[in-house]
Amino acid sequence: MFEKGYIDENYVRVSRDELFSFVVKVLMKLGVPKEDAEIVADNLIMADLRGIESHGVQRLKRYVDGILSGGINLKPNIRIVREGASYALIDGDEGLGQVVGYKAMKLAIEKAKKSGIGVVVVRNSNHYGIAGYYALMAAVEGMIGISMTNSRPLVAPTGGVERFLGTNPIALAAPTKDKPFLLDMATSVVPIGKLEVYRRKGKPIPEGWAIDSEGNITTDVEKVFNGGALLPLGGFGELFGGHKGYGLSVMVDILAGILSGGTWSRHVKNTSERHSEVDHFFMAINIEAFVPLEEFKEKMSRMIEELKSSKRHKDFERIWIHGEKGFLTMQTRLKIGIPIYKKVLEELNQIAEMVGVEKLKVKG
Amino acid sequence: MFEKGYIDENYVRVSRDELFSFVVKVLMKLGVPKEDAEIVADNLIMADLRGIESHGVQRLKRYVDGILSGGINLKPNIRIVREGASYALIDGDEGLGQVVGYKAMKLAIEKAKKSGIGVVVVRNSNHYGIAGYYALMAAVEGMIGISMTNSRPLVAPTGGVERFLGTNPIALAAPTKDKPFLLDMATSVVPIGKLEVYRRKGKPIPEGWAIDSEGNITTDVEKVFNGGALLPLGGFGELFGGHKGYGLSVMVDILAGILSGGTWSRHVKNTSERHSEVDHFFMAINIEAFVPLEEFKEKMSRMIEELKSSKRHKDFERIWIHGEKGFLTMQTRLKIGIPIYKKVLEELNQIAEMVGVEKLKVKG
Repeated sequence: MFEKGYIDENYVRVSRDELFSFVVKVLMKLGVPKEDAEIVADNLIMADLRGIESHGVQRLKRYVDGILSGGINLKPNIRIVREGASYALIDGDEGLGQVVGYKAMKLAIEKAKKSGIGVVVVRNSNHYGIAGYYALMAAVEGMIGISMTNSRPLVAPTGGVERFLGTNPIALAAPTKDKPFLLDMATSVVPIGKLEVYRRKGKPIPEGWAIDSEGNITTDVEKVFNGGALLPLGGFGELFGGHKGYGLSVMVDILAGILSGGTWSRHVKNTSERHSEVDHFFMAINIEAFVPLEEFKEKMSRMIEELKSSKRHKDFERIWIHGEKGFLTMQTRLKIGIPIYKKVLEELNQIAEMVGVEKLKVKG
Repeated sequence: MFEKGYIDENYVRVSRDELFSFVVKVLMKLGVPKEDAEIVADNLIMADLRGIESHGVQRLKRYVDGILSGGINLKPNIRIVREGASYALIDGDEGLGQVVGYKAMKLAIEKAKKSGIGVVVVRNSNHYGIAGYYALMAAVEGMIGISMTNSRPLVAPTGGVERFLGTNPIALAAPTKDKPFLLDMATSVVPIGKLEVYRRKGKPIPEGWAIDSEGNITTDVEKVFNGGALLPLGGFGELFGGHKGYGLSVMVDILAGILSGGTWSRHVKNTSERHSEVDHFFMAINIEAFVPLEEFKEKMSRMIEELKSSKRHKDFERIWIHGEKGFLTMQTRLKIGIPIYKKVLEELNQIAEMVGVEKLKVKG
């Protein structure tokens, strides 16, 4: 009898491989080349595997809409505008953000292999999925990886009430003796995806996440979606450092948007619009150029060990390391499948019908 | 009669030049070479000019103590351990942090001039003053400047109660058509200097800045100084993103400490101790390698203009840009002098007497 309530009837599970080949097939039917479709699928499903559903396959519809509306260029001429041994500027030609991002990070890694450092900035791209994906690409090559992107305006600057800044994420990954350290954070208190979950459940949001259209802190998620805005990391005003989150967001706009000859979040548009003008910043640091990789990994693991064994607060079960929860979730989901919200399943199957591929096989 | 209370009797004013030559003389008397003394003085006084008193001349005593105790090496062999066209690893040989930092950032700028990017990491240094100083060095050369440093442990990780992380600041400066944009932030809610001000005034601190030795949020500043800790940006727990501030702090430890073959904040010591093991990360990005500098500046200024003219919250008089308050304060203080707390003046004059230089001339 105690099992009651342990199964959430709103979800079904789908295996990673089934989901992967589904996304690839859908995208290919829409004219995306196979290699590109695989890159997008891998990125979306990595988000689902790691528990970041807001950036997982539930976003497929937005990409499909972007393709159908012509907002995404399926055969982009992704070209290097300028480059040196340690840097490049890429024009994404409005291609799929994941494809542009993948190629840009690959280039950063290549440059870092040869010259120690690779900085690649990108303009004219689209929403690129989870920032951490690209940072991890470098970490598995024994490098530190950094990835940032501007994004459409959702966050008010300190003292302001307008949606001006993006949630502009910053990701950094670094290898350890075990799984990589992976920081992947929006520069707002929470990403918009968290509010979408509260909205769906009809629950009030915690006081301090967002403001209404007058700039007052609100717990009413509808008020946020109707002309309100998210707050930058640090919250309202300056007392708890809201100006720092605001500054980090502008930092991303500078490094990704202005340095690339692109734009800043206020002018970034949805993927379904033409010229959504998303810009990215990627960096790979070849650890071996500085210190032996083994020494680096050893120290990373020692720091993590010290962190985890440092004195805990009585209300916390453990001290987490960045990326750790995601890797644990990944382990489970690779084994028993990825939970898909039933409404999302419906939407995915509608897409399947529309483009003419088989419906998703669920595990139950 | 309304003027009453407008003058704070706890402060005197000293001109920038008087303060500069005072600090230089004191350091030279202690055996610091002239060029090095000038670098330290410039850094400390820049902090005072910009209103960051905690990092200004009130810190001179700590450097003097560090020199007298042998914790600081006055004739360090600051050497390049490894380098490439776009990067270098420097050993600071326990020299004055400002001197080591200045030389490292100079090198980063030089490398960026030639190759587009300059990344310089430093180990075995000491407290380097304000992080923004080095970032600004790049901005005035038409580059983006980034500066980070680890620092002695003061901040508890999310879920923990121990002082483990440093306040590990991140600074980024970028040129505009007017004064540079300058983000210079501790990755904790507030730097320790803010608590020192409350302690001095005997006032309770806002709820959410720090915890006591049990890990509970406290407003009693004495409890923080007696075994408590600062909270990372985002505050207590994960609800408002405390794990993000914690992650940014670790990021600095990775980039400055572990990448340089140095250490992480938990093992960083006070300047007066030998082997304080402070590590830095510097980066200069030559904007001209990516886009024309004028275009970059133009866009920066346009973004700032848009930010400042975006809709304000009714309780805020204006929307500030990062660095702006500091430049305004600088303008005033260059004109009418730098306010020095009387107890600090006393301390400075004791130092003067000890080393045998003239007392500070105050403007009144």
